[in-house]
Amino acid sequence: MCLSHTTVDSGPSTVDYLIIFAPMTDPIYSHRALYDFTLAIFRKIGCPDDQATLATDVLLNADLRGIDSHGIARLSGYVRLWEAKRVNASPKIKVVHETPSTAVVDGDSGLGLVVAPRAMEIAMEKAKVAGTGWVAVKNSNHFGIAGHHAMMALQHDMIGMAMTNASPLVAPTFSVERLLGTNPIAVAIPADKQPAFVADFATTTAANGKLEILQRKNLDAPLGWVQKKNGAPSTNSNEVKEGGALIPLGSDREHGSHKGYCLGAWVDIFSAVLSGANYGPWVPPFVAFLNPPSDPVGEGIGHFFGAMRVDAFRPADEFKKHMDNWITRFRSAKTIDGQERVIIPGDPEREMSVERMKSGIPLNPKVVEDLNALGSKFGIRLTD
Amino acid sequence: MCLSHTTVDSGPSTVDYLIIFAPMTDPIYSHRALYDFTLAIFRKIGCPDDQATLATDVLLNADLRGIDSHGIARLSGYVRLWEAKRVNASPKIKVVHETPSTAVVDGDSGLGLVVAPRAMEIAMEKAKVAGTGWVAVKNSNHFGIAGHHAMMALQHDMIGMAMTNASPLVAPTFSVERLLGTNPIAVAIPADKQPAFVADFATTTAANGKLEILQRKNLDAPLGWVQKKNGAPSTNSNEVKEGGALIPLGSDREHGSHKGYCLGAWVDIFSAVLSGANYGPWVPPFVAFLNPPSDPVGEGIGHFFGAMRVDAFRPADEFKKHMDNWITRFRSAKTIDGQERVIIPGDPEREMSVERMKSGIPLNPKVVEDLNALGSKFGIRLTD
Repeated sequence: MCLSHTTVDSGPSTVDYLIIFAPMTDPIYSHRALYDFTLAIFRKIGCPDDQATLATDVLLNADLRGIDSHGIARLSGYVRLWEAKRVNASPKIKVVHETPSTAVVDGDSGLGLVVAPRAMEIAMEKAKVAGTGWVAVKNSNHFGIAGHHAMMALQHDMIGMAMTNASPLVAPTFSVERLLGTNPIAVAIPADKQPAFVADFATTTAANGKLEILQRKNLDAPLGWVQKKNGAPSTNSNEVKEGGALIPLGSDREHGSHKGYCLGAWVDIFSAVLSGANYGPWVPPFVAFLNPPSDPVGEGIGHFFGAMRVDAFRPADEFKKHMDNWITRFRSAKTIDGQERVIIPGDPEREMSVERMKSGIPLNPKVVEDLNALGSKFGIRLTD
Repeated sequence: MCLSHTTVDSGPSTVDYLIIFAPMTDPIYSHRALYDFTLAIFRKIGCPDDQATLATDVLLNADLRGIDSHGIARLSGYVRLWEAKRVNASPKIKVVHETPSTAVVDGDSGLGLVVAPRAMEIAMEKAKVAGTGWVAVKNSNHFGIAGHHAMMALQHDMIGMAMTNASPLVAPTFSVERLLGTNPIAVAIPADKQPAFVADFATTTAANGKLEILQRKNLDAPLGWVQKKNGAPSTNSNEVKEGGALIPLGSDREHGSHKGYCLGAWVDIFSAVLSGANYGPWVPPFVAFLNPPSDPVGEGIGHFFGAMRVDAFRPADEFKKHMDNWITRFRSAKTIDGQERVIIPGDPEREMSVERMKSGIPLNPKVVEDLNALGSKFGIRLTD
């Protein structure tokens, strides 16, 4: 199924989910082929057409942007959650509480890939009237890449924000227990002639996907990414599988891991304590083979979205011209020897997206195998 | 002037501005004495009574909470800015643009210590009506500790947020140029029987105040706090004075410094590009002996505040009970050997505050000297 051998290397990234530097041997698929396959699978499990499209848009955008850990590689995981009756393929998503600038959304156990863009739409509707809109979501599931949802605001001259809690894999500073998820934050800010500023990052030192790359290559992790089951420092890239934990951004107390812990906690509280979802160690695991805790403190997992109309603060054209100036100044800053440029958040993913739309998306052979098995089950063939 | 010898040690802190572990030789002053002295100075430079009180409340709260770098130690710095005609002691603070949930405030070159609490009040007024309130501020100055302003929301069962940009001392990832300030973020979240969650942190690996402690002791800094003028790693605690830079939270690319850069950039854009203040390298320096850039892109420095009514999402008592549960669960987590407990953001500062209100506030002898000189100039005596 290999279309061509392409070396995909976007340079260093401001996003840390996972930018795969595809080995020469990985087969390449067109965006169209993967999109059609994914859409067909979502329809097969019973998603209504409009929801299947929403979910496919979110999932494939991750692959285009180079965040391979959150793209089609997760498709069979979502299907397993549906098989375990933890995902409702045709949810009735509804607003259960609201004020002029806020809403709480019940996701009815739907795919986060569907619930999240719906909730972001509600935030933007609120912003049109009240200047800003803030939506907390309960009873949802994994929502893909945070950046996709935040970026929905850009075309409306709004600033978009998205965050979510996630399965507990992260130990707060001084803890041996895993109490937080990698809890990402995304902020998308429109500019004029320059591409938008899009920050999208897990609040840990490194995301799980980066460890997976090292595991495949039998390589150690840098100190500061993970800790052992007893909390001791470790370079074992398999540590999390062995009862250890990911570490909040900052790596250790001396280098500010308490700040990464604050960030992850903030995301958890906004996403779940505000909405009525499960928080902290009670967040249901993504993998279907692990059961959710038997003593839930809320419903499903939680997200939090924000939309701010730029012209609720100053004229949009004025703001966007200053954003161009901000971006241009930072991008042209004098660099450390050996570095080509100062990166504007969103640059590497945008460039990757253009490249992959043109040249295709490389898939790890194990992912291809997994997708072929999934396709067989539903009578759908993965083509290039 | 030394009341007593007290060893002040709050243990590890979640705030990084600067927690001073006072040497046994530092003289101790009562909160009352320092409060009265500060209030008198602000009156002497022409602050109206209500504004002088606001400014004193903010400044002394930093000393109480153990964030000594942002307390009375800065008083003479504010006065020097007033002498240089960069601070207006009796500003007419006004809303220049608004929607139901947003406002832009012109600080009229006032003390940030006055402008910030006024802007936070406006955010809370908006939240009462619209559910949330978001206020961007231009034409302001250094606003003290972010946490003070965010915490104003707590008594109203609101979540408070505060951020500000600051003099450029931080190099984005791969940059040798200093383009960002230490740009702190504070988030204050109410609980029921438990004390509130109060995160308040600079978006750098370590704050300048921590370097100052090392400088006084002639000690090196850990790798990852600062870089040399050419961007090379350094352990010289004087590096920033010699043209080097502070490093964003994460320390290096491998440990996520690009995420700290995203955070600092986010704060800069919300505080200044949204409001019409100066951003990035154009932010005026705090020290009066350095002139602001001659090509400003906005007015003064910028802040950003948020207030969210908890009951705009779910009933406040329900939310606060879940916050108690969150806090209790995290605080009681199993710790790494040698660590007493997992800290809830805000714990060390609250404990320090109780201790210092009772036993007094230790001041570095150089700060005492500076305050005595300031007092002489205005005919005010610093007593214990």
